[in-house]
Amino acid sequence: MTGLAARQSTVFAPQFAEAAPEQHLSRAEAYIRAHDFARPTLVIDTQAVARQYAALAQGLGRARIHYAVKANPAPEILRLLARLGSNFDAASRTEIAMCLAAGATADRISFGNTVKKVSDIAWAHAQGVSLFAADAEEELEKLAEHAPGARVYIRVIVENCEADWPLTRKFGCARDKALELIAMSKALGLDPVGLSFHVGSQTRSAQMWAPVLDQVAAIWRAAGEAGHELSLLNIGGGFPAFYGEAIEAPMNYAADVMGLVHERFGDVAEIMAEPGRGLVAEAGAIAAEVLLVSKKSDNDLHRWVYLDIGKFSGLAETMEEAIRYQFLTDRDGDDLGACILAGPSCDSADVLYEKRPVELPLGLKAGDRIIIRCCGAYTSTYASVGFNGFPPLDVVAI
Amino acid sequence: MTGLAARQSTVFAPQFAEAAPEQHLSRAEAYIRAHDFARPTLVIDTQAVARQYAALAQGLGRARIHYAVKANPAPEILRLLARLGSNFDAASRTEIAMCLAAGATADRISFGNTVKKVSDIAWAHAQGVSLFAADAEEELEKLAEHAPGARVYIRVIVENCEADWPLTRKFGCARDKALELIAMSKALGLDPVGLSFHVGSQTRSAQMWAPVLDQVAAIWRAAGEAGHELSLLNIGGGFPAFYGEAIEAPMNYAADVMGLVHERFGDVAEIMAEPGRGLVAEAGAIAAEVLLVSKKSDNDLHRWVYLDIGKFSGLAETMEEAIRYQFLTDRDGDDLGACILAGPSCDSADVLYEKRPVELPLGLKAGDRIIIRCCGAYTSTYASVGFNGFPPLDVVAI
Repeated sequence: MTGLAARQSTVFAPQFAEAAPEQHLSRAEAYIRAHDFARPTLVIDTQAVARQYAALAQGLGRARIHYAVKANPAPEILRLLARLGSNFDAASRTEIAMCLAAGATADRISFGNTVKKVSDIAWAHAQGVSLFAADAEEELEKLAEHAPGARVYIRVIVENCEADWPLTRKFGCARDKALELIAMSKALGLDPVGLSFHVGSQTRSAQMWAPVLDQVAAIWRAAGEAGHELSLLNIGGGFPAFYGEAIEAPMNYAADVMGLVHERFGDVAEIMAEPGRGLVAEAGAIAAEVLLVSKKSDNDLHRWVYLDIGKFSGLAETMEEAIRYQFLTDRDGDDLGACILAGPSCDSADVLYEKRPVELPLGLKAGDRIIIRCCGAYTSTYASVGFNGFPPLDVVAI
Repeated sequence: MTGLAARQSTVFAPQFAEAAPEQHLSRAEAYIRAHDFARPTLVIDTQAVARQYAALAQGLGRARIHYAVKANPAPEILRLLARLGSNFDAASRTEIAMCLAAGATADRISFGNTVKKVSDIAWAHAQGVSLFAADAEEELEKLAEHAPGARVYIRVIVENCEADWPLTRKFGCARDKALELIAMSKALGLDPVGLSFHVGSQTRSAQMWAPVLDQVAAIWRAAGEAGHELSLLNIGGGFPAFYGEAIEAPMNYAADVMGLVHERFGDVAEIMAEPGRGLVAEAGAIAAEVLLVSKKSDNDLHRWVYLDIGKFSGLAETMEEAIRYQFLTDRDGDDLGACILAGPSCDSADVLYEKRPVELPLGLKAGDRIIIRCCGAYTSTYASVGFNGFPPLDVVAI
């Protein structure tokens, strides 16, 4: 409804166009406008999740969607996706249990964390989960002992500097190690079915996948030449959400990625994709409140704006200002000015945007409501249990 | 018991010397060695908290201790400190409620967050809390309306590059603004009693306080010259804990700081100090487990060691590798080698130490117990509610 952010978003994020045109509000945002909240609250529009799932599924064609549960494990989302036929990528025993509770059978759940607790592997195996990720010898030994005969995909490291949130080397192994791990899997009685990788979170253009897919295809071919016939390609996540910079529409994006995959891998028997952010981020918005607007001295260039939500209560992805959230306020038409944005805690690290200040209405003051857009992913479960005594982010599904 | 960390710590951290000399274990660490834990658990030794409180209180002399509740709000700690006569610095309504529940009366609680929700100010005022922090005009207006007549201290910005975790400009105001806010407080019917500042978290040597105290004393004098007689000096926190680098013993440290204060401020009517980390960090240790040890390729320089606790489940202070925790394992006598240390989540940001790797036993492997030392502060409440499905840090007080 107000300012630059709203005007930009209607251009690139299809869901906003569906709200009343004079408002440019998503359904979640309109719900926030119409309600009061006692504390910071994430509102998730399940209809928007369903639409996005349909668009991605159509673009991905024969690739199977395994929703990255860690992005947002709200039961309403899991139940909806289970009903729509989605599969699930779980990071832990708890996430597997949540998927089962939401109605997914074990054969639709992969245990995608390369770092697993032995007791969790055994528990998942007992539930019937049979597809696991690995990137190291010791992980294969754990799997062979506690999930004998399991299907395993080996995660490989890829180089990519184009994603908005490039992944470090924390996950995956180098090419030679990957081939060794495939051979070792066989020797341990496991079934090494394929490879996985991650292009990097928030990869805004499908074309950015090309150099990464080239790297994976080279390892895939090397595995074949070494006598390992692989049948499963897990292309991971990286599907983007709208945070103020142009992204492609989800169906086109997914179809373009699949085109790039087909050029390099041909008719792979099984392809799986793990959208998380790209599936739920735009479906959510956070209702928050301005606690204080101030200047440190009268000749300060920027105002400081303090919100009742911060880095430790849901907005962890503002770390290093990586994810740039968009904001709406009720002061439509006010002139805008640059602000440093900070959270409510007594922690000096709880500053959201300082290097690149945020444009907000000049009339903004304590008590004003503020809506944070496209917050459906990586917010609610990041919130701390009670840092500084602040409650975790509340979640409402509509 | 093992390695470099243990040997160093006995030199500088007095409490370790009290354990059996051949073990060099604190009471919390010994408790962890003797018990099994199903998930990452912080063990807090309340006897160590009591000893540290006594040492700081003796060193601080006539200055009143207001424990910074945010460092660790465990009910056992709050009840102990309430019984010992401590006062409390609360960051939120919830923290005030916890202090009241622990037996502290409202006159022993200050509301030290400069960014407060209006409804929380009104609630605190109704409970009888009468001492508040502020650093901005709008905050004074909120206080005047919802806590009329309250005593207020103005937080000022100080420059300090020597602390291990230097604070940004998030809190406090510049000198001229401070004088304006004192005058404005009076005009609003508030009682501007004094100034507060923060020297920076983990200020390892008392001498580092001198240049900061000089800055505050200049503002204090300017206030007097402007006709504002101040009676309360809040010296904040900054009291250090042992993380592997030499620190002074707490009583000496506190006494040295008070000496520096006296040189600059003379006989101030009221002095308050807000130790948090310096009071509870060394009293706690975390029981954790190694989930995986791996190399990304056979010619990798360092191993990767993955724990069942990470940045999102209690070790948030490893951000930018600011706080360097010390580790103990059961592999006493093993040769050590450098490791990159990471948490269990599927988040690439969940890496604890990479720029400066950690020395750990070469024989370390999945399933090994690992003790993280001096974790009593800023761990339990930073833990996320369930990121990646991992439960928050458990807390046990002994």
